[in-house]
Amino acid sequence: MESDFGIARELSDLQKLRALYQPELPPCLEGTTVRVEFGDTTTAADPRGAHTIGRSFPHTYGQPLAHFLRATAKVPDAQIITEHPPIRVGLVFCGRQSPGGHNVIWGLYNALKVHNPNSTLLGFLGGSEGLFAQKTLEITDDIFSTYKNQGGYDLLGRTKDQIRTTEQVNAAMAACKALKLDGLVVIGGVTSNTDAAQLAETFAEAKCQTKVVGVPVTLNGDLKNQFVETNVGFDTICKVNSQLISNVCTDALSAEKYYYFIRLMGRKASHVALECTLQSHPNMVVLGEEVAASKLTLFDITKQICDAVQARAEQDKYHGVILLPEGLIESIPEVYALLQEIHGLLRQGVSVDSISSQLSPWASALFEFLPPFIRKQLLLYPESDDSAQLSQIETEKLLAHLVEAEINRRLKEGTYKGKKFNAICHFFGYQARGSLPSKFDCDYAYVLGHICYHILAAGLNGYMATVTNLKSPVNKWKCGAAPITAMMTVKRYGRGPGTLSLGKPALHPATVDLKGKAYELLRQNATKFLMDDIYRNPGPLQFDGPGADAKAVTLCVEDQDYMGRIKQLQEYLDKVRTIVKPGCSQDVLKAALSAMSSVTDILSVISTPSNSGNTPF
Amino acid sequence: MESDFGIARELSDLQKLRALYQPELPPCLEGTTVRVEFGDTTTAADPRGAHTIGRSFPHTYGQPLAHFLRATAKVPDAQIITEHPPIRVGLVFCGRQSPGGHNVIWGLYNALKVHNPNSTLLGFLGGSEGLFAQKTLEITDDIFSTYKNQGGYDLLGRTKDQIRTTEQVNAAMAACKALKLDGLVVIGGVTSNTDAAQLAETFAEAKCQTKVVGVPVTLNGDLKNQFVETNVGFDTICKVNSQLISNVCTDALSAEKYYYFIRLMGRKASHVALECTLQSHPNMVVLGEEVAASKLTLFDITKQICDAVQARAEQDKYHGVILLPEGLIESIPEVYALLQEIHGLLRQGVSVDSISSQLSPWASALFEFLPPFIRKQLLLYPESDDSAQLSQIETEKLLAHLVEAEINRRLKEGTYKGKKFNAICHFFGYQARGSLPSKFDCDYAYVLGHICYHILAAGLNGYMATVTNLKSPVNKWKCGAAPITAMMTVKRYGRGPGTLSLGKPALHPATVDLKGKAYELLRQNATKFLMDDIYRNPGPLQFDGPGADAKAVTLCVEDQDYMGRIKQLQEYLDKVRTIVKPGCSQDVLKAALSAMSSVTDILSVISTPSNSGNTPF
Repeated sequence: MESDFGIARELSDLQKLRALYQPELPPCLEGTTVRVEFGDTTTAADPRGAHTIGRSFPHTYGQPLAHFLRATAKVPDAQIITEHPPIRVGLVFCGRQSPGGHNVIWGLYNALKVHNPNSTLLGFLGGSEGLFAQKTLEITDDIFSTYKNQGGYDLLGRTKDQIRTTEQVNAAMAACKALKLDGLVVIGGVTSNTDAAQLAETFAEAKCQTKVVGVPVTLNGDLKNQFVETNVGFDTICKVNSQLISNVCTDALSAEKYYYFIRLMGRKASHVALECTLQSHPNMVVLGEEVAASKLTLFDITKQICDAVQARAEQDKYHGVILLPEGLIESIPEVYALLQEIHGLLRQGVSVDSISSQLSPWASALFEFLPPFIRKQLLLYPESDDSAQLSQIETEKLLAHLVEAEINRRLKEGTYKGKKFNAICHFFGYQARGSLPSKFDCDYAYVLGHICYHILAAGLNGYMATVTNLKSPVNKWKCGAAPITAMMTVKRYGRGPGTLSLGKPALHPATVDLKGKAYELLRQNATKFLMDDIYRNPGPLQFDGPGADAKAVTLCVEDQDYMGRIKQLQEYLDKVRTIVKPGCSQDVLKAALSAMSSVTDILSVISTPSNSGNTPF
Repeated sequence: MESDFGIARELSDLQKLRALYQPELPPCLEGTTVRVEFGDTTTAADPRGAHTIGRSFPHTYGQPLAHFLRATAKVPDAQIITEHPPIRVGLVFCGRQSPGGHNVIWGLYNALKVHNPNSTLLGFLGGSEGLFAQKTLEITDDIFSTYKNQGGYDLLGRTKDQIRTTEQVNAAMAACKALKLDGLVVIGGVTSNTDAAQLAETFAEAKCQTKVVGVPVTLNGDLKNQFVETNVGFDTICKVNSQLISNVCTDALSAEKYYYFIRLMGRKASHVALECTLQSHPNMVVLGEEVAASKLTLFDITKQICDAVQARAEQDKYHGVILLPEGLIESIPEVYALLQEIHGLLRQGVSVDSISSQLSPWASALFEFLPPFIRKQLLLYPESDDSAQLSQIETEKLLAHLVEAEINRRLKEGTYKGKKFNAICHFFGYQARGSLPSKFDCDYAYVLGHICYHILAAGLNGYMATVTNLKSPVNKWKCGAAPITAMMTVKRYGRGPGTLSLGKPALHPATVDLKGKAYELLRQNATKFLMDDIYRNPGPLQFDGPGADAKAVTLCVEDQDYMGRIKQLQEYLDKVRTIVKPGCSQDVLKAALSAMSSVTDILSVISTPSNSGNTPF
């Protein structure tokens, strides 16, 4: 099949139009005289992990932030990189495909060629397997022409998700050396960017000349931290799913007799479910983070939904739409514990048929309580990241089943007096992943691709390309790079066999912040959503006219531009230094000392690690 | 819940833009001086049924076709209806919601008000139940403003699908009389339009003044005959589904390790599956009509798919996309027979648990062979139209299961040498039904709404509104009306308990014509689709730019404009009459007689009913 990669193909009329779309560049990346300004050296967000991270990444931890500025920017310390020798860059798709991935290639390719037409971009064919096997496709204008602004990862393909074992890392290094790569760009999510950081460290240690750059591309939207506001693909996925959810809402309201249970993508975190709820206003959403935080059992969740159904029945409403993230099932404490037991037994080689007899008494009781179809799905072998095969576990059917049983019980008992409860279940997973990317994802990915070039031109290693202030128009976007190690945390408690890797620094999926503004917006509206059917239909993904420039609600309500604000702080400090120069008056010095002493006191107190165990973001 | 009908609501930006869209009218419907030309009296397409239909519909069978022409059209016999007294019209949504239904209301409302501002349009709330209970909502500009060009049936809602029993028909008549309706417009598919014809006949018999008009609105696209080229909703459904299928194709090509089995809507006929295949070029489609025509068993279908998987594996391809219509399961002869036995037992009141023990030996053998999840689904009580609960039967999972088992067998045997077979299943049903309607469906529905008015203004009863030449731009569309009875056929062999209604004339779902041009196009491309992955991505439904004006492939390849061609024939006949007037030369008369004798001979031969049992279209 590899021989087919990169072949030209027939595009539909709309695809052709999209292929003609030229994403804009923010002013700072225009032309060939981009300035780089280095900020302060970075630390890890979780100060408790900083020492461990520093020890694990001696060559790449603690590097400064980098900001890319336009040539005319008035920043004294910024430097213009004037030399642009031809360079060779490799690029690999890691992990699940995400709409917009192709545009990272395009942006990087254009930036390479603008700065030196003799530079080379090699795509690895078939993902990390292609990297290990040194199978490449040289990107050319011709090859790329039918992939501009198009979905999927089919220009290069992808296979396994990991570059982690010593064997894999060595194979990657051998490939980079054999192909004489100056840079390797890794496109992926949390896992792949952790791998990229590890590769960068290993390469630096081994004095391999290849610099490694990561790009945040994952439709789950869970690679989120101070430096990274959102991920390529998330916007498209939420828009396509919100369209479908809205269609189902309209359907529910037309027939008025079904409850739709819809399972959405989102494994460790419920970002997609939250965003889709804010876009399409279904009646209810059950976020994994809420369930985990409140330690809700399967029975609690069932009861919550039944109470909602009952409250609506009292208003003579017998329809509704309820969203669930696929990771929900692992957030339910007792189901998680059951899964852990099952996975443990599977890893010991216990056959599927004998597992139920070897469970602990309480796990066995829960297992036997569950309907047969779910039992079968829970018995599937866990994935490489130790989680259950979440796309295969029909949590929506389980909950629909439990709710129906409970409503029937209440009906018999006389506490529920409404009509029969009818549920229809859906899983909205794979049908969105291959979508044409939204304008936002096209632009964001293209700009990130450009930044990859500037990171390599600046000779940086182990950085992730970043764009901040994304809720503003492209001409206000701020471009930079942050060491991946600065985004790492150290997990204190491992999961199952993950205890082996206890204390290993890594990027971890950011979960929905239950104290954040997006969640607050959901809570404020939850009752209206539940009772008033204020369904909102953003419609199918548009590329022109209203809606085409819409951005994710969660992106727009959250505080943003951490990178910009870090720069702003630097400017304040510089200003103090300029005003309080030796020779200034005693009064000025006194005022400065008093004010700064107060500031440092406050900051010391609030940034001391607490023992409450809160994750920092 | 009824109190919520027709309330204004928040629209998204895209919905607002769509609400501003004003569908065009073909020139023949512009202004208030539309001419009506009556064509020849109609017969039924199946001459064998004509007598039965005529006997069942003495008042409404054999009425002429009606063509609506512009005031300036040079047609001698056409009449302009000059009187437009205020009239009262009721409108009811019947059956499953279909995108565009709202625009029929809008078109009718505008036509009513243009001709007489004192006319009244009443919508029945909650479908046929609302008709029986005389629950209405008067349509006003204000009420309709947020429903223009919007999906769903939520302005009025819908409930039961039938107006058929004596009690129901009487309730409908009582409503029409009580509300002093001049017209009743029934919006729906095959079943609802049959009911409309029956109502029209009953009303005429009872001298009820209300005229009944049907409108072909059904997303299945199976209300198709000489007069009706396509149905409102079909275009949108196929576009939304093709978008999702294309996304899945891109996904398959990116990961190269999954076969996707996708079940689509389409109960008695596979029009949606055929159209989506022609739009998005998946690897394979299994049409119910092919299976029925070739009497393929479950094992034959499994083998066909396995052979395809094997052929692709030989080219190192381990991914693919396979479409199935939801009605497929009933097309498989042995499964159909099993379902008939099960439904018979269910109707006799046999409990679900005892059914398997009461099946005939061979049916029992098949039943026990099937995996448990399918057994449970086959045991569901049949729907009101005697078909199985097709939306609940996961045919895609059954076939994926059987294909996997067979591939594993071949692997063991050594005949299949490829990698492991992995299947992922999807049902694309409800997520398209509530979509914003495509431009085509907005226009088509709006024009049909206008035609309803002209049918009523001409005093016609038992007609369906028709638009032909739909593949051309709106300004070439031809508007008319045909008696519903002319579209009826008489089924010779009843199904199960349907034998009671043996010989009762009705509209029947048109199945995919295996000799038609659309199917031929599929066959010509089947091998390329299967082997070459020439996936085509029409992209999400657009309302502007490329793709926004795309029409269904099946609509564009089929012969069209039957109504137009019938008119053309009339013109030829008139011309002959004009040329061969008394007083013409002997030679002219001789030539005319000779030619006409030959024409009539040929036509007599080819229009004599054959006994081969072919359905006429």
